[in-house]
Amino acid sequence: MPKTMFRLDLSKPMEEQAHPGHNRWHPDIPAAFSVEPGAAFRMECKEWTDGQIKNDDSAEDIRKVDLERVHVLSGPVYVNGAEPGDLLVVDILDIGTFQESEWGFNGIFAKENGGSFLTDHFPEAAKSIWDFEGIFATSRHVPGVKFAGILHPGLIGVAPSMELLQEWNRREGELKAQDLERVPPLANLPTPESAVLGTVKGAEFDRIASEGARTVPPRENGGNCDIKNLSKGSKIYFPVFVDGAKLSVGDLHFSQGDGEITFCGGIEMSGWIELKVDVIKGGMEKYKIKTNPAFKPGPVDPLYTDFIVFEGVSVNDLNGKQHYLDANMAYKNACLNAIEFLKTLGYTGEQAYMLLSSAPVEGRVAGIVDIPNACCTVAIPTQIFDKDILPK
Amino acid sequence: MPKTMFRLDLSKPMEEQAHPGHNRWHPDIPAAFSVEPGAAFRMECKEWTDGQIKNDDSAEDIRKVDLERVHVLSGPVYVNGAEPGDLLVVDILDIGTFQESEWGFNGIFAKENGGSFLTDHFPEAAKSIWDFEGIFATSRHVPGVKFAGILHPGLIGVAPSMELLQEWNRREGELKAQDLERVPPLANLPTPESAVLGTVKGAEFDRIASEGARTVPPRENGGNCDIKNLSKGSKIYFPVFVDGAKLSVGDLHFSQGDGEITFCGGIEMSGWIELKVDVIKGGMEKYKIKTNPAFKPGPVDPLYTDFIVFEGVSVNDLNGKQHYLDANMAYKNACLNAIEFLKTLGYTGEQAYMLLSSAPVEGRVAGIVDIPNACCTVAIPTQIFDKDILPK
Amino acid sequence: MPKTMFRLDLSKPMEEQAHPGHNRWHPDIPAAFSVEPGAAFRMECKEWTDGQIKNDDSAEDIRKVDLERVHVLSGPVYVNGAEPGDLLVVDILDIGTFQESEWGFNGIFAKENGGSFLTDHFPEAAKSIWDFEGIFATSRHVPGVKFAGILHPGLIGVAPSMELLQEWNRREGELKAQDLERVPPLANLPTPESAVLGTVKGAEFDRIASEGARTVPPRENGGNCDIKNLSKGSKIYFPVFVDGAKLSVGDLHFSQGDGEITFCGGIEMSGWIELKVDVIKGGMEKYKIKTNPAFKPGPVDPLYTDFIVFEGVSVNDLNGKQHYLDANMAYKNACLNAIEFLKTLGYTGEQAYMLLSSAPVEGRVAGIVDIPNACCTVAIPTQIFDKDILPK
Amino acid sequence: MPKTMFRLDLSKPMEEQAHPGHNRWHPDIPAAFSVEPGAAFRMECKEWTDGQIKNDDSAEDIRKVDLERVHVLSGPVYVNGAEPGDLLVVDILDIGTFQESEWGFNGIFAKENGGSFLTDHFPEAAKSIWDFEGIFATSRHVPGVKFAGILHPGLIGVAPSMELLQEWNRREGELKAQDLERVPPLANLPTPESAVLGTVKGAEFDRIASEGARTVPPRENGGNCDIKNLSKGSKIYFPVFVDGAKLSVGDLHFSQGDGEITFCGGIEMSGWIELKVDVIKGGMEKYKIKTNPAFKPGPVDPLYTDFIVFEGVSVNDLNGKQHYLDANMAYKNACLNAIEFLKTLGYTGEQAYMLLSSAPVEGRVAGIVDIPNACCTVAIPTQIFDKDILPK
Repeated sequence: MPKTMFRLDLSKPMEEQAHPGHNRWHPDIPAAFSVEPGAAFRMECKEWTDGQIKNDDSAEDIRKVDLERVHVLSGPVYVNGAEPGDLLVVDILDIGTFQESEWGFNGIFAKENGGSFLTDHFPEAAKSIWDFEGIFATSRHVPGVKFAGILHPGLIGVAPSMELLQEWNRREGELKAQDLERVPPLANLPTPESAVLGTVKGAEFDRIASEGARTVPPRENGGNCDIKNLSKGSKIYFPVFVDGAKLSVGDLHFSQGDGEITFCGGIEMSGWIELKVDVIKGGMEKYKIKTNPAFKPGPVDPLYTDFIVFEGVSVNDLNGKQHYLDANMAYKNACLNAIEFLKTLGYTGEQAYMLLSSAPVEGRVAGIVDIPNACCTVAIPTQIFDKDILPK
Repeated sequence: MPKTMFRLDLSKPMEEQAHPGHNRWHPDIPAAFSVEPGAAFRMECKEWTDGQIKNDDSAEDIRKVDLERVHVLSGPVYVNGAEPGDLLVVDILDIGTFQESEWGFNGIFAKENGGSFLTDHFPEAAKSIWDFEGIFATSRHVPGVKFAGILHPGLIGVAPSMELLQEWNRREGELKAQDLERVPPLANLPTPESAVLGTVKGAEFDRIASEGARTVPPRENGGNCDIKNLSKGSKIYFPVFVDGAKLSVGDLHFSQGDGEITFCGGIEMSGWIELKVDVIKGGMEKYKIKTNPAFKPGPVDPLYTDFIVFEGVSVNDLNGKQHYLDANMAYKNACLNAIEFLKTLGYTGEQAYMLLSSAPVEGRVAGIVDIPNACCTVAIPTQIFDKDILPK
Repeated sequence: MPKTMFRLDLSKPMEEQAHPGHNRWHPDIPAAFSVEPGAAFRMECKEWTDGQIKNDDSAEDIRKVDLERVHVLSGPVYVNGAEPGDLLVVDILDIGTFQESEWGFNGIFAKENGGSFLTDHFPEAAKSIWDFEGIFATSRHVPGVKFAGILHPGLIGVAPSMELLQEWNRREGELKAQDLERVPPLANLPTPESAVLGTVKGAEFDRIASEGARTVPPRENGGNCDIKNLSKGSKIYFPVFVDGAKLSVGDLHFSQGDGEITFCGGIEMSGWIELKVDVIKGGMEKYKIKTNPAFKPGPVDPLYTDFIVFEGVSVNDLNGKQHYLDANMAYKNACLNAIEFLKTLGYTGEQAYMLLSSAPVEGRVAGIVDIPNACCTVAIPTQIFDKDILPK
Repeated sequence: MPKTMFRLDLSKPMEEQAHPGHNRWHPDIPAAFSVEPGAAFRMECKEWTDGQIKNDDSAEDIRKVDLERVHVLSGPVYVNGAEPGDLLVVDILDIGTFQESEWGFNGIFAKENGGSFLTDHFPEAAKSIWDFEGIFATSRHVPGVKFAGILHPGLIGVAPSMELLQEWNRREGELKAQDLERVPPLANLPTPESAVLGTVKGAEFDRIASEGARTVPPRENGGNCDIKNLSKGSKIYFPVFVDGAKLSVGDLHFSQGDGEITFCGGIEMSGWIELKVDVIKGGMEKYKIKTNPAFKPGPVDPLYTDFIVFEGVSVNDLNGKQHYLDANMAYKNACLNAIEFLKTLGYTGEQAYMLLSSAPVEGRVAGIVDIPNACCTVAIPTQIFDKDILPK
């Protein structure tokens, strides 16, 4: 009977919550609560944009989204006894929706506002609303499909140490400096704009806001990894960088295709998550899980076993230029090939694109050594369609 | 009762076979035989290096391998009635080993001779021999693991049109020209050295050899895609570029990890494949399967459902430099993280690396939009180990 | 956002609920509410004994259970437009636990009070309490195992017509008459004792109670079929026998082994279920689904793929007598063989027996024609144990 | 590279083979060859009737089949060092077809000649021929379906001790004596008619033939268990009753539905099997695997995950009589319900019946305690049909 340790009022922005969460990574954001190793507890989470996206038929909110606001996270949780060098073991016991909010959204960000994986082909904003019917999702904006959810936190991570945070800011600053005007940007650096930092106030707020790393990229602490298979029943091994580990979670997805290619994202939702935490003392060195988390997926993913798979290789479709073993280019082409096929079923390109980002689509690195072409594949479960889609 | 339409003598090199296969792509390589749509037939295949690698404990053969010789393919098969614009539908009915040759090999190519995905970390040649026991593989060189095979042709494809072939040579030539001295090379261009072109002889041989594209990269015609899930029971939809389609196949694998990261490769073997072919007239335009093949995987993959998964993000582990949404770098780091963990179980780095390339390991594009870090994962089935490998 | 159409107060017995459910089958039990075809709604359910079993360490409550009280059901739901001859299509959208009641129970009924499948071997009452941790169950009474739930309604069915009800009473009465003193009884006939009949009162109550069929057996209306794979996402096709179909549901299980061999039962729990209903006019005749329901299982069962399987044949282990193609005897022996093996792991016979009835164990009719021995199997997932259980 | 230790000429009956197999169980049938623990080897097997059934369109051969001739087995194999009390561990490494014989058969035995599970509903003989296309089977006699095989030995077992053999003869004789005239018979007792006993000759032949148990029923030694999941990659633990264990195998199936309900049978074929044997000294007592074998299924079953499931309860459909917790009756009704549904798709009853016995259909003991009705289910994979079969 896990207690709800972090409660939210969905009608209020994160900074007005009884205990506000946070939307930056920093070791000095104070814990929202503490637990003993072995404890199980429930946390409530707002969808990642903090309520900016509405359940309607206009993509205007996606087009204008304030990305300085993302991701509003729940936590941090201080785990008593966890110390740098340990592994924090986190069991995702369950994830659920709120009965009063059984819907989510997927959106293609406009090129001038974040962009997406195929932003050169789909530069305009678009949105699809997905309704939940128990374990299933359907959308009035992408008709003819229905699939079981594979609920997961798009973002779950521990706090960085000050050294690690500085390293992030250094390397991302160097990257950003290569092209400060690029749209979308090469990296998002710390900014106090729209920052939420738990209960921190005053000068301390200003300091942390100016140092705190943005939550968009996955990093050594886990963070926004957007791994759809990190679903119910998964067990994660996090390296610990600060006392208490300071675990935070958010960006819940009802479903997602590998790659989260529209950027916004999977099927983004508010909901709750039940976690159990434990500590392996000295585990980072013992198991060499030091650079990134590792995990064991849960045992209850959807049993979709019938797929149609599209391949892509690393040749730029826009100019015919050959790239060297470029998995991004290969995966782009696999997705574009899939979209062209889905259009023959009657979908618009935008619908097909959002479907690939929302449904439990599998993206694989097939071959990565066959000079000069990487080969990636994207596999779409055929059982999610209400008709037989295979070529005859 | 499919007839064997292409027979080989494993003791002879490809050019000395009763009907030699080929190791270049060219529309003018004559068909080895022709079949009607609807026909099922069996073809025998030599392992990709044409017998250069021996079942012994030395990696000397891997180190000195002649890569101009790869991949020795069986075919081409002329499918009566197939024309440019059609889709050639190929069912992989079955794949098997030869009772007298129940072993295969995996190798890490030396950096100076092809290299591999992690060549900066593993520049030296290494080899592992895998013995087949029915559906299972084990290796005296990588002890403590046993897994069911997922047999597949690493390479299956149709002949390019002359226009398409010229486009390949153009774009790969441009890439190669960027750094002609690079080791490993950026691309492998046509060369008569070690070319095998079926029954072609004389001046025609010289012309085709000087024009024929190398078989290493996957391309619009399928080719060396190295997709482990293109296994028994799969149905492939190939765009057709020349009359008769001219289907060829080879590079059989007993198993492979996603990415085929050591380059050589999966578990490379000689064996046979049963195929059935059919034609969808005008299918390229109707289904928009024009740029690359698409396929439906077969229904009998190994049921491994318990994994340990390693994540990687796009930061260069050698110099700490941040790369922008680079899936290659992310997958490299996922693999390096997995190798570090496997070393805590007692494996050498080379053993771990070859295991990742040989076992049914899943490589995923997890998140590809979370600026600036791509996130890829590599998932290792825990059921293949003879002990419990999870951190405790 | 399905509305909760049937609410319960877990602290009160069924007859004291705001709208009482029922524990008998009869066409004249009035509907609790009505819905249109296409509607989705949530119903709350009490565990089948109506609160007789406690979360403690004594089996006294199991030993003394009042079986006239079972199964307390939620409903009936009147589906507008459904008529005899139609098929009622019921989607199980989701099933969940109450956060304040995250536990369930399994029990072996004493031989004198209902008995169980192996009552000759296990005549005494026993109980195990199972705690829910998100999607997983564990028990302080059966240590060393943990498994993902496969939540399902043990009982879901539609009201019988008066003719069908009379047929049930006739045939079960004839069976019972063969041995009125048998312990456990051959059949349970209508009885007013402990009957709950919704809002019915007075003389009508007496009539219905004296006619209403007991809910224990599965029958033409579905009812207490105890099929563990009738889980989340399943779609059931019920023959309709009365206007409005009158759907009722209860006996929720968090998990169950095939056979529900201890009788009490799976892991019995209170909880909620979300359903969606639709009607296929004239479907009984069109699809010949007339004698019993048919269903399509949902797509999210636990992915346990590693089993140890025990066989049993139809020879009586107590006296060596050969039975003719008797699947009951064969399944009994398979279960007894499994129990003997589980005892070598340190379990008591009762623990092993309750584990087989609680975990997602698969019971198969393997061979049913090999005169004179039927062969049945029981398959136990090895991944639920905290150690390797295979013989070495 | 396992050697073929038992070779057959498919054109000759079993007694004329270079080394004949056997079709009775007896401890004194001499071993065909011996192996060391740890050895892997291949054996060839004839289909169970020894060539009586032809690849044609008449069921006359099924109607007239000589059942005294079944099952012609390959073996016995003497495993050096195996002694009574040990466990013989047998790995099924692989199973395959002969390229020159890629077909099998299913048949309904006539009531007067063996009968079948639904013999009261289908008393006449019928036959279907199934063609193998690699891993798939199709039938000209049951159109519109295609499924992946799940190859397995219908029969695999060790020799009984003399004591065990006598016990079989005793208990089966007692059963038979209850109704000596019954058609089909209650049991098949030893008979010299059509007996094949390896190399045994003369008086020894007469003795063994008069004592040797028929191979039809599964028993303590394994034998004709007809378990479809005992497929490639399975590991079986056999109790050992005689020195050397004396393992025999035959009755290979390309596929089978649970129950093998037409009796003849699954898809019956000739083929080869690769086995590996090992011994656990004293394992019978240590693991209490004494009464019947136990096994671990292999990892490569077909991934069919979409089913339509039919339920049956234990009421006699012919006379409306209620049976007490009778799983046979329940499974019969589930099968009859499935057949009625399949007939709405255009199949004859016989076609539907043979399909249930040939395809990878799952038969479950769902509920076995809900007095007085047992509930069994039969689940048909929907993915094997060439059209959508679900009710709409």
